[in-house]
Amino acid sequence: MTAVTAAPGCEPADRLARLALSIFEEPGDPQLAEYVRDVGAVRLRHVLATGERLGGNRPWPPRWSRDDAKAAMGAATDKAQGLLDATPRTLRWICPGDGEWPIAVDDLDHVSPLSGRGAAPLGLWMRGPHDLRALAIRSVAIVGSRAATSYGSQVAGDLAAEVAERRVTVVSGAAYGIDSAAHRGALAVDGITVAVLACGGDVAYPRAHESMLARIATDGLIVTELAPGSTPTRLRFLARNRLIAALTSGTVVVEAAWRSGALNTANWAGSLGRVTMGVPGPVISSTSNGVHRLIRDGGAELVTTGAEIAESIAALGAETCSWVQGEHRLLDDLDDSGRQVMEALPVRRACAVNRIAESARRPAEDVAATLGRLLLAGLVERTGEGWRLSAHAAGELRRA
Amino acid sequence: MTAVTAAPGCEPADRLARLALSIFEEPGDPQLAEYVRDVGAVRLRHVLATGERLGGNRPWPPRWSRDDAKAAMGAATDKAQGLLDATPRTLRWICPGDGEWPIAVDDLDHVSPLSGRGAAPLGLWMRGPHDLRALAIRSVAIVGSRAATSYGSQVAGDLAAEVAERRVTVVSGAAYGIDSAAHRGALAVDGITVAVLACGGDVAYPRAHESMLARIATDGLIVTELAPGSTPTRLRFLARNRLIAALTSGTVVVEAAWRSGALNTANWAGSLGRVTMGVPGPVISSTSNGVHRLIRDGGAELVTTGAEIAESIAALGAETCSWVQGEHRLLDDLDDSGRQVMEALPVRRACAVNRIAESARRPAEDVAATLGRLLLAGLVERTGEGWRLSAHAAGELRRA
Repeated sequence: MTAVTAAPGCEPADRLARLALSIFEEPGDPQLAEYVRDVGAVRLRHVLATGERLGGNRPWPPRWSRDDAKAAMGAATDKAQGLLDATPRTLRWICPGDGEWPIAVDDLDHVSPLSGRGAAPLGLWMRGPHDLRALAIRSVAIVGSRAATSYGSQVAGDLAAEVAERRVTVVSGAAYGIDSAAHRGALAVDGITVAVLACGGDVAYPRAHESMLARIATDGLIVTELAPGSTPTRLRFLARNRLIAALTSGTVVVEAAWRSGALNTANWAGSLGRVTMGVPGPVISSTSNGVHRLIRDGGAELVTTGAEIAESIAALGAETCSWVQGEHRLLDDLDDSGRQVMEALPVRRACAVNRIAESARRPAEDVAATLGRLLLAGLVERTGEGWRLSAHAAGELRRA
Repeated sequence: MTAVTAAPGCEPADRLARLALSIFEEPGDPQLAEYVRDVGAVRLRHVLATGERLGGNRPWPPRWSRDDAKAAMGAATDKAQGLLDATPRTLRWICPGDGEWPIAVDDLDHVSPLSGRGAAPLGLWMRGPHDLRALAIRSVAIVGSRAATSYGSQVAGDLAAEVAERRVTVVSGAAYGIDSAAHRGALAVDGITVAVLACGGDVAYPRAHESMLARIATDGLIVTELAPGSTPTRLRFLARNRLIAALTSGTVVVEAAWRSGALNTANWAGSLGRVTMGVPGPVISSTSNGVHRLIRDGGAELVTTGAEIAESIAALGAETCSWVQGEHRLLDDLDDSGRQVMEALPVRRACAVNRIAESARRPAEDVAATLGRLLLAGLVERTGEGWRLSAHAAGELRRA
């Protein structure tokens, strides 16, 4: 478990203003985001709440009538203040500037919006013990059809387990079908999974996934732009998809009919320069149509295993994610054998030497000797079931 | 049915020499092909049969001992003469220069050989009523695993039927699994299919496909480099694969494990600049592994329907196959509507107006009017079951 880093941190007034604005307007509104960039969240909230002029040559935001805005912004501010004063203990509101802020989502402010909902989030609600920025560094979205076939669900679960065992965070949307199969696949191997919701972090949607969401909140992380108690809408689902794409290094689509929401996430990933991947299936299955077309049109790489997924996102990470470089500091002090063994160790569950050797593609006796050296360096721990990363090393690698 | 065109034709001495050389040495031998290009088949056969010097500064082909060659070439010549004198009525031997010679296979002389068996064939045995050069113009190879799954066999049959209905010749190797499913799919819709064998054209291999091969010999075409009575060997299978790739505008692989012979055909297609296509399947099926890897590595386009296959090979044809241009003469005289209706008509089986309209993507009443005009022009015929191309138009389109 990684503690939330508060420093340098978002100013309290900004934190309140961003929360009030996020309640006032639906997620991802590009006009609101532009005003926030121009005059700041604090000033914009004040102007909308009072009907004052913006100042300079800036016009009143044409989107909202002055009177409606005053009333709605007043109510939003009251609600925001109430939430910050008495947020459920399990939920926290983080903003740009906070140590935990996943800076990858700010890329959204630099791409053209799809379906008019493109802006970076004003803030994010978190529920769970992990640091989102750290989890996002090695992460992949696994998404797909709600009406998944048993083939699709099985493959999504297997792929999620395979990447989770390689310390890649599995991000999805907690929906029926592929999404929940991906979360469960990661949870089953004690991997880390993040559910990005289109409703409040305290809302169990769909209802049937209540216990899965509770498990994710305990062992992984629940992320949403929406205030506690908010219910999902179509617009919120679409806005949520951009977050899934932006948070991760790549998006894998497992089963998607041609008009599936999962393809919307893949489009976002493509726009954001993330890796877009598709898992093929039987050509006679309509749930694989969308994926096949995406691959055929060059919109996605074909992937069939967790190793291929990890390889594709690693290649991108090394090239484009500058903040990944931090991860290399810890590993740079090691020789090849040490690095390969560290990279082969699973997140939390301890693992036998033979299996680590297989993963690291090194002889078992060599791996055993290396583990001894890493133990002395405090980077690995030995348990009854085998070897795992030490808490220190795991934290360092995640935080980067 | 298209009669074999003899003119301008291969000289009788050359025809005999090529047949004798094809009996003397295994198919595709690049050294033999080089000597044939240098001194001609007639001179090379004579030299090998007599042990004479080649003349000029050319050395005796180092591959064969002078005495062994004399004996073997003598026997091969006797056998060749016997075959030409008393060829089974159903078989014919064609050579470069014959009107039916599929000039596409000569491309083999311009690419690096794979596994040492790369040369264009010296001649080809034909069994069946069609003109191979005409059939090859719009053709696609559909190949894959012998150990096909029921999924793979179904898809291969469906794709073959779809492309055959678009007047594309389906070429394959008559093997168990995908090959035979492809042939049968084409036969089932009265499409045209070509089996390229690794044994004599009169040999039923595999035995279980005897009746299918008989049907192909009646309604399609059997093609082989090997003299009547020859049995298949591993080398002959590999050499045969290059012919399948060279004869066609593209190769579609349906199911292939990573070391499958079908990938050898795909590699040949790639070397020859033909379109290489792969049909995806479940990632948990080992018979689809090879196809997925081929697509993932950029070695093949992902295809899922006959329409996509037809589109891919049409795009190539228009760019690279100059002899396809002939086909345009007939269609160039027509307006858009006429062209589209002609292109939508199946090879032989008559078809209802509605179905033609659907295929041509034009309103049914427009198609009915167009068919009337085409009937007057002698390009289509009306039968009890609907409309089809007239024998004249079908011949023109095939012959190009």
